[in-house]
Amino acid sequence: MRKSKLSSNNRAASALLVLFLFVIVAAQQPEAPPSPYSPGLLEELNRLHGAALASDYDYRQVAYLCNNIGPRLSGSPQARGAVEYVAAEMRKLGAEVKLEKVMVPHWVRGEERAALVEYPGMVPGTTQKVVVTALGNTVATPPEGLTAEVIPVGSFEELAALGRERVAGKIVLYNVRFDQQLAAMGQAGQAYGQAVAYRWGGPSAAARLGAVASLVRSVGGADYRLPHTGSFAYAQDATRIPAGAVTSEDAELIQHLSARGPVRLRLVLTPQTLPDVESYNVIADLKGSENPEQIVIVSGHLDSWDLGTGALDDAVGVGEAMQVLNLVKQLNLRPKRTIRFIAWMNEESGLAGGRTYAENHKAEIADHIAAIESDEGVGHSLGFSAHVSEKAMPMLQPLAQILRAHGATAVRRVEQSVGADISPLENAGVPGFAPLQDERTYFNYHHTPADTFDKVGKRELAENSAVLAVLAYAVASLPEPLPR
Amino acid sequence: MRKSKLSSNNRAASALLVLFLFVIVAAQQPEAPPSPYSPGLLEELNRLHGAALASDYDYRQVAYLCNNIGPRLSGSPQARGAVEYVAAEMRKLGAEVKLEKVMVPHWVRGEERAALVEYPGMVPGTTQKVVVTALGNTVATPPEGLTAEVIPVGSFEELAALGRERVAGKIVLYNVRFDQQLAAMGQAGQAYGQAVAYRWGGPSAAARLGAVASLVRSVGGADYRLPHTGSFAYAQDATRIPAGAVTSEDAELIQHLSARGPVRLRLVLTPQTLPDVESYNVIADLKGSENPEQIVIVSGHLDSWDLGTGALDDAVGVGEAMQVLNLVKQLNLRPKRTIRFIAWMNEESGLAGGRTYAENHKAEIADHIAAIESDEGVGHSLGFSAHVSEKAMPMLQPLAQILRAHGATAVRRVEQSVGADISPLENAGVPGFAPLQDERTYFNYHHTPADTFDKVGKRELAENSAVLAVLAYAVASLPEPLPR
Repeated sequence: MRKSKLSSNNRAASALLVLFLFVIVAAQQPEAPPSPYSPGLLEELNRLHGAALASDYDYRQVAYLCNNIGPRLSGSPQARGAVEYVAAEMRKLGAEVKLEKVMVPHWVRGEERAALVEYPGMVPGTTQKVVVTALGNTVATPPEGLTAEVIPVGSFEELAALGRERVAGKIVLYNVRFDQQLAAMGQAGQAYGQAVAYRWGGPSAAARLGAVASLVRSVGGADYRLPHTGSFAYAQDATRIPAGAVTSEDAELIQHLSARGPVRLRLVLTPQTLPDVESYNVIADLKGSENPEQIVIVSGHLDSWDLGTGALDDAVGVGEAMQVLNLVKQLNLRPKRTIRFIAWMNEESGLAGGRTYAENHKAEIADHIAAIESDEGVGHSLGFSAHVSEKAMPMLQPLAQILRAHGATAVRRVEQSVGADISPLENAGVPGFAPLQDERTYFNYHHTPADTFDKVGKRELAENSAVLAVLAYAVASLPEPLPR
Repeated sequence: MRKSKLSSNNRAASALLVLFLFVIVAAQQPEAPPSPYSPGLLEELNRLHGAALASDYDYRQVAYLCNNIGPRLSGSPQARGAVEYVAAEMRKLGAEVKLEKVMVPHWVRGEERAALVEYPGMVPGTTQKVVVTALGNTVATPPEGLTAEVIPVGSFEELAALGRERVAGKIVLYNVRFDQQLAAMGQAGQAYGQAVAYRWGGPSAAARLGAVASLVRSVGGADYRLPHTGSFAYAQDATRIPAGAVTSEDAELIQHLSARGPVRLRLVLTPQTLPDVESYNVIADLKGSENPEQIVIVSGHLDSWDLGTGALDDAVGVGEAMQVLNLVKQLNLRPKRTIRFIAWMNEESGLAGGRTYAENHKAEIADHIAAIESDEGVGHSLGFSAHVSEKAMPMLQPLAQILRAHGATAVRRVEQSVGADISPLENAGVPGFAPLQDERTYFNYHHTPADTFDKVGKRELAENSAVLAVLAYAVASLPEPLPR
């Protein structure tokens, strides 16, 4: 501790000065404005919250999408079946339903397998299985597969250091770990972001150095030999080479063997890219009583990957958004503004739904008061993220008082987009929202065969439905639109 | 509390009686016998223990078996490669190596897939994948598969109640949960035992009622859509029908859909059963200095299932047993009796190795002082189980003093066999031993594609190697053989 040089007189003078400044500052604080939440609105929000926790409508919707319809890859018959099902359910509720045409890629997963065919110590006449999955929209290998040495790298820098001479003609394996500890600490999104860069940009980086295929260590937690699929982008300036993901176990195996000598891998991926097909965003409106032209979107995405049944990603988001309309109808509530349900198409492999909607509704962007998307699984609810102007926060904070009934108190303002499908709207200035939840295990299941209905907790689903319902109804009913 | 009816005189008399009886009992306690552990032996055991924790010989052996050789299904080229590798390593240590011929089944897994082809709400023109694996030694379906209604049952009783009329021509699904909570409480073996009865006896019970195939919900924990294979027995009196295991997720899906209407499944399993082949138990002796005819076995099983690389089941057991010989050699120790390493063949699908050994060595059973097998994975070490006479316990308890250096203090006497391969010896009166360890997650990986080398903790492996080394060397060096 630094020794004070103040005399006791000086101390007394300083104390007075502090008090004086405090009085000035306090006097400059504006009076708290009157709450925009009328007692009537608060009562409606509390009723909505309670009804969300008591209802299993959302759970039954999620079950139907996962179990009866199954995986809903863009362009597939199941995706079309899901559009028809959700549209019919929304009509049953009396909502005004519209199918918005979206052209989507139609990529069909084929055979996918891989095996080590040469490596140090291999028993003659044997091979060793490698669990692999194709990344979405990848080109195929030849039908009989391709065989080449596989070279593990730990980063783009390591790849660059190897150079064309070492990489040309080879299969590159990006062996970059998903940081499970970081995810367990509640930073799952950051852990995902660190590793997904290699899935996204890896294939073209490898192709630029002459690689014949690109594999990424699966981006996700857990150690149950599950491959995680996902999307990526071919760069314009690079040859399109086949792109897959191997499990963390297989990446470790290849790394281990490669330290002792060359490892050759046979890779068979035979997906087909068919012509784009017409698909749809499902849009269902509950018209506002006073400002029907003003829109509050509640949404999830209806398409899924095809390995599992897209339960956490994102039948739950669709089910929660359906529940919002169901509850508002069941409770006979009439929001001032229109609550618009959207089940987005093609979030996973192109974002055609989100882009098409933003393009089609360009002229009405100013009337889009808010866009809410739920697409982060279904952990215990913590509150919501708000991609909004600071000026909007005083209108949102009081919602924590309602949500705390299920343990959620976080109203977190963020500076970036909070949902892929709504990001084109957010980029155009529309306030964006997403439920905040416990995501510690989300990336264990994300994009894997294990993303199935049994992973959905009824209680956690209801909590997140409650967040969507309270948030959407509040923003649709407050006296003024959210400031931007 | 019950009111006492004793008078105070009676109480004094009673107290005297208790004291008198106590004196008699105390006088009858024999004096503690002198410890059979000489200071020299204790010093050797402590050195062995420390050396086990410091060495990575076991870890490198397990890595080689899993990564370089791979899955080691009985009858496969990899099983043969593993025999040759382990025999060569034992010869390197200077042990006397013998290959004991064992005839084993040669079953080769074929294609295995299943799909729901009809169920309530199915989108026309689609099917839904079911993740399935063949149980070991099952017969095949026709190459194009078989299609039938699938009927979930929760028990043998429920199956019996359905009767032949409902079951004939159908596929039976035993949807019996593995109790994950019980496993997490440390009772993994009990959880396994409860559920495995349906894998073991299910196919013939279904066949007796006319079923065309039998599926069991995978016996094991975790929820990552992993099928667990394993063995079962066809009864003499029942038709041999194809037998598989589906994942817990797929069992839940079928159960969910079946509640709403008939579910039809197409099942394709095309394994082949080839003629039995000659294989081997690898036997390696470090001869005893005083009683070379007396044998203490340390062992694990060399064969594995073929979905993963048999790391936890049971490369670790083999690696630990190899480490015992390695350490005794490295430390220049000479046990009084022979320490016999055995890598058993065919534990998983017939137990031919264990049976053959017991048969071949019938005449020397009395000289088998102890048989130790490690085949329960590689969790943190707790001590060991001893299937021994009560009279043997005072000779074993002092070992806890040595093992407690790594946290293991349990010397647990049990009344049943502690290892499948050694069970024929135990049945013939040979004291049996197994390391005791944390098995809470063992059945998450057991018999699945995820039983791979990355699941092996170097420290936990060393702890269990230390148990085997200390136990084997002690029993091989004590003045007297263990009493039976």
